[in-house]
Amino acid sequence: MSIGVFDSGVGGLTVLRALRRRLPARDFVYLGDTARLPYGTKSAASVVRYADQAAAALVGHGLECLVIACNTASAVALPVLRQRHAPLPVVGVVGPGAEAAAAASRSGRIAVIATEGTVRSGAYEAAIRRLRPDATVSSVACPLFVALAEEGWIEGEVVELAIRRYLGPLLDQALPPDVLLLGCTHFPVLAASIRRVVGTALAIVDSADTTAAAVARVLDGAGEVAGATGGLRLLATDDGPRFARVGSSFLGEPITPAAVEIVDLG
Amino acid sequence: MSIGVFDSGVGGLTVLRALRRRLPARDFVYLGDTARLPYGTKSAASVVRYADQAAAALVGHGLECLVIACNTASAVALPVLRQRHAPLPVVGVVGPGAEAAAAASRSGRIAVIATEGTVRSGAYEAAIRRLRPDATVSSVACPLFVALAEEGWIEGEVVELAIRRYLGPLLDQALPPDVLLLGCTHFPVLAASIRRVVGTALAIVDSADTTAAAVARVLDGAGEVAGATGGLRLLATDDGPRFARVGSSFLGEPITPAAVEIVDLG
Repeated sequence: MSIGVFDSGVGGLTVLRALRRRLPARDFVYLGDTARLPYGTKSAASVVRYADQAAAALVGHGLECLVIACNTASAVALPVLRQRHAPLPVVGVVGPGAEAAAAASRSGRIAVIATEGTVRSGAYEAAIRRLRPDATVSSVACPLFVALAEEGWIEGEVVELAIRRYLGPLLDQALPPDVLLLGCTHFPVLAASIRRVVGTALAIVDSADTTAAAVARVLDGAGEVAGATGGLRLLATDDGPRFARVGSSFLGEPITPAAVEIVDLG
Repeated sequence: MSIGVFDSGVGGLTVLRALRRRLPARDFVYLGDTARLPYGTKSAASVVRYADQAAAALVGHGLECLVIACNTASAVALPVLRQRHAPLPVVGVVGPGAEAAAAASRSGRIAVIATEGTVRSGAYEAAIRRLRPDATVSSVACPLFVALAEEGWIEGEVVELAIRRYLGPLLDQALPPDVLLLGCTHFPVLAASIRRVVGTALAIVDSADTTAAAVARVLDGAGEVAGATGGLRLLATDDGPRFARVGSSFLGEPITPAAVEIVDLG
């Protein structure tokens, strides 16, 4: 029995990294739908269909838990996947991310940066307001951050100017937010540059650690898993060499092209 | 009978624009595979499969000519589509782009900027060397330009710094190129910013006009098309409102969301 994790590409490897740190003895199987990435600019209907196919492929591996490590897919496809695969626990990143943001904010003014799809869904606003009905949530779509992270341009002038362009209006408000939630799994690799631009008045939180904590809570009752050895299988729907090259910085450990199995969801 | 044009998304609308200018009485049907864009970061095998499905959908509309208005798909899928749909004329953008570059260069030193997939294919080097065996071709993958064009960040500091970062090594050579070929249909919208960075020593060419000329040559023998009225149908595989919003600047005329028909290729 493995913990299945999926994302549109390599971004979810930041969540996998947090999961492996917290649950080192568990087996994991990760699927990146690189043939159809990004999900963040696609319609909700397409994302639901893609997420459904990705989840079905992972469930075939025998899972104790399914993690949707993609904010866009979590925002629009979580209810469908929970219903389809019940009683398998399905954990998304939006709920845990909202939890982290709500806990970190003193003023209740929370900014969320995410993809177009996630922002359009309103999922973060809803999840944060369920935890803190007094919260003021501002959401900004930052689609270029995905391309910058994929290109490895995570430091330097280009990325800092892009951050300033997207976040300037947020920071210049009379009552600025005190928490910035990274609502896309690509964004944690840009955190150092974001910090340089936004300064220290803002707490930067992401959903990787709180998602790992949520998965650990879900599995608590399940006890030890017989035969698990801390193994990891990496699946992608396209271009293993690119997945390995770009993914290594997201996972925080080297990935060899030979370690990536190509699967077909179409 | 229509001229069918397809691309991974909205970029090919720059080619459609040139086609409509040159062949105003013809009917056109354009398909943007927005559910699976971009093609430029995907493997050749995936791009061939996607292009095959897109071409099949267009051929069903009754075509006098099929235009692959996507450099990545032209680079890897043109032979397959020609064979599959013979005797229908199939025109890609790589040959016409190479023709434009070869004609514009005095020194024979030509730089091509394109997506990862197009650069990896080596299609432009091969096509340019067929026309000018003495040519020295340098290719640079500029994947971030696609995201910048899609985001509408086509002028300003961010885009100029990105251009400088990608093209600096090319321009700083002892014997720099005298022609810069825009080998991706997204890039013409960045041409003014590229010009500001590269200066006037370099001719900037794209494949839109030469592709339109190639299509006109192919159709010359076909004479007038009975019943054609200069009509245009726009199809997309995902998110009509986004296609309309982003596509208008590429087509150079407003697109209403209602004008975009959604089709399923999966």
